[in-house]
Amino acid sequence: MARIAVVAGDGIGPEVVAEARKVVDAVLPGVEVTEYDLGAARYHRTGEVLPDSVLDELAGHDAILLGAVGDPTVPPGVLERGLLLKLRFAFDQYVNLRPSRLWPGVTSPLAAVKPGEVDLVVVREGTEGLYAGAGGSLHRGTPAEIATEESLNTRHGVERVIRDAFARAARRERRKVTLVHKTNVLTHAGSLWSRTFDAVAAEHPDIATEYQHVDAAAMFLVTQPQRYDVVVTDNLFGDILTDIAAAVTGGIGLAASGSINPDGAYPSMFEPVHGSAPDIAGRGVADPVAAVLSAALLLDQLGHADAAARITAAVSAELAARSPEVTVRTAEVGDRIAAQAAG
Amino acid sequence: MARIAVVAGDGIGPEVVAEARKVVDAVLPGVEVTEYDLGAARYHRTGEVLPDSVLDELAGHDAILLGAVGDPTVPPGVLERGLLLKLRFAFDQYVNLRPSRLWPGVTSPLAAVKPGEVDLVVVREGTEGLYAGAGGSLHRGTPAEIATEESLNTRHGVERVIRDAFARAARRERRKVTLVHKTNVLTHAGSLWSRTFDAVAAEHPDIATEYQHVDAAAMFLVTQPQRYDVVVTDNLFGDILTDIAAAVTGGIGLAASGSINPDGAYPSMFEPVHGSAPDIAGRGVADPVAAVLSAALLLDQLGHADAAARITAAVSAELAARSPEVTVRTAEVGDRIAAQAAG
Ligand SMILES: CC(C)[C@H](C(=O)O)[C@@H](O)C(=O)O
Ligand SMILES: CC(C)[C@H](C(=O)O)[C@@H](O)C(=O)O
Repeated sequence: MARIAVVAGDGIGPEVVAEARKVVDAVLPGVEVTEYDLGAARYHRTGEVLPDSVLDELAGHDAILLGAVGDPTVPPGVLERGLLLKLRFAFDQYVNLRPSRLWPGVTSPLAAVKPGEVDLVVVREGTEGLYAGAGGSLHRGTPAEIATEESLNTRHGVERVIRDAFARAARRERRKVTLVHKTNVLTHAGSLWSRTFDAVAAEHPDIATEYQHVDAAAMFLVTQPQRYDVVVTDNLFGDILTDIAAAVTGGIGLAASGSINPDGAYPSMFEPVHGSAPDIAGRGVADPVAAVLSAALLLDQLGHADAAARITAAVSAELAARSPEVTVRTAEVGDRIAAQAAG
Repeated sequence: MARIAVVAGDGIGPEVVAEARKVVDAVLPGVEVTEYDLGAARYHRTGEVLPDSVLDELAGHDAILLGAVGDPTVPPGVLERGLLLKLRFAFDQYVNLRPSRLWPGVTSPLAAVKPGEVDLVVVREGTEGLYAGAGGSLHRGTPAEIATEESLNTRHGVERVIRDAFARAARRERRKVTLVHKTNVLTHAGSLWSRTFDAVAAEHPDIATEYQHVDAAAMFLVTQPQRYDVVVTDNLFGDILTDIAAAVTGGIGLAASGSINPDGAYPSMFEPVHGSAPDIAGRGVADPVAAVLSAALLLDQLGHADAAARITAAVSAELAARSPEVTVRTAEVGDRIAAQAAG
């Protein structure tokens, strides 16, 4: 049976993760869970963000389910870089998967978009680009200061994530992959991305392809999100585009994500896109749907496609039945989805 | 009297520029205009994009009005980099100004946003960042290929554009500046941007400030564009965010921009954000509003605030009177705006 590490984290993290676990238990009893108390509290207690010993222990699991980390009392970036990005890089989670669906019952901020019409997935590169941490500064704090940030891209890294995007498109109905970059300005990386894209596309004559500059894609996600199926892009563009995609499909409160090592050499990590939302923590009103959908992605990744599909269907039913006037009750939502998914 | 260089360019460029000139003539007769035939046609005829001699001549003008450059027959990037970006850098146009207003009569794709509610301006840095052209590749075309792109940021460049943003906010009603960056990942450049922002903000205690990560800003531009007044950000983030801002305020068909050298050492350049749209070129149906608004920005920059305001008011009247069912007639729109603005 699957061995899962759970990092509930800060703020609403523990609340939404509890519901995700409830739902997993309902569809797949017997999953073995180990809890890790990473996040703001541990940082304050011990000064540590992610000790090497914990990193080693996490590596021994099949997957990681994370709630949310972050708290106003922790300097910005400490947990993001020390925990989230550290895990993505240490575990070579090169596929950062972010599906966006406009579920029945959910209203898009876009007037012309109806539920069911948007169903896209962004395959964001997770281990390269401007996230590599390459850069520096000189003459800091003086008028002569310069600061640099370097985007590092390898054929190895670009090709594997593009292959993953095509493999996903091949399993979907519309079979279309959109490459997003900024080849007219970022000519070196852009050339590597588009040549690699073309080479992989040539092996998939049955999959439709298109290219868009990132500024155009940001615009079309607002005016015509229906047009996308699978989008593949670099780490930073993916960061921005997935928040737009989440916004047009009902907000980050519903958005799930996976940081995936498809080779299985390391555990993949699944987490809601929303943050720890300290303002509503502890009140039992956080929406657990994004965490539940993240757990579904996790099960799917571990080969439990049926269990994942049952969760997804139960979420869909839950959202369709929701009335916008009624406040979400975290535990009740979890109970309903669990009951429905267990069937 | 002002001396303006006009680059009508390709596709619909000449059509919309003709209307912009008509409107300028109506509000400020006697502006001296020199035409330059840069763009795809000249590139095909001579192989040149922007000869040094033309660059020198352009430098002798007070401002440049550009229609659009680009054609499918020209390899991607050639005109963008050889002309647009070349001018931005050669003429040190460090303020890339992109106002977005939801005009009365224009429908936003966002259901909850009403005309009059969105009135923001993005002050995008125009001469640094990932647009510097720093980067390269090794082992091109082999499995060992790497490609880099470097974002270069100087205190000099960051401070001057932030100062410009605060100066603009001081002249606006809401007096608020939002810094957008990605300080939690791009720590070196992010630190330079936020320390500089804080230092300039301290000199303007009467101006409200906030900071947002670029992914959050992309999301809020979709869910709550009303919240922004002046946004200041780097070159690439600005490229992306301004297309989102244009999308939520009726599309790039209405969006004007200025690439400004506020010091006046070099001419500033004004152009619609839309491209050359070869598919509709020559049919007289291109909307000249973005070009006309760009001309208003130009006049404002040259100190003709009254003339600019008259154009803007005339555009507002034109849009308010438009019926979405009626096809735009380029010349008629120009005639109406010119008559109204002269009025
Ligand atoms: C928290 C931050 C480092 C992270 C990112 O930029 O990847 C977040 O925005 C995300 O998208 O998961
Ligand atoms: C054409 C391109 C180089 C340009 C840019 O990226 O700045 C365009 O997108 C813009 O926003 O003016």
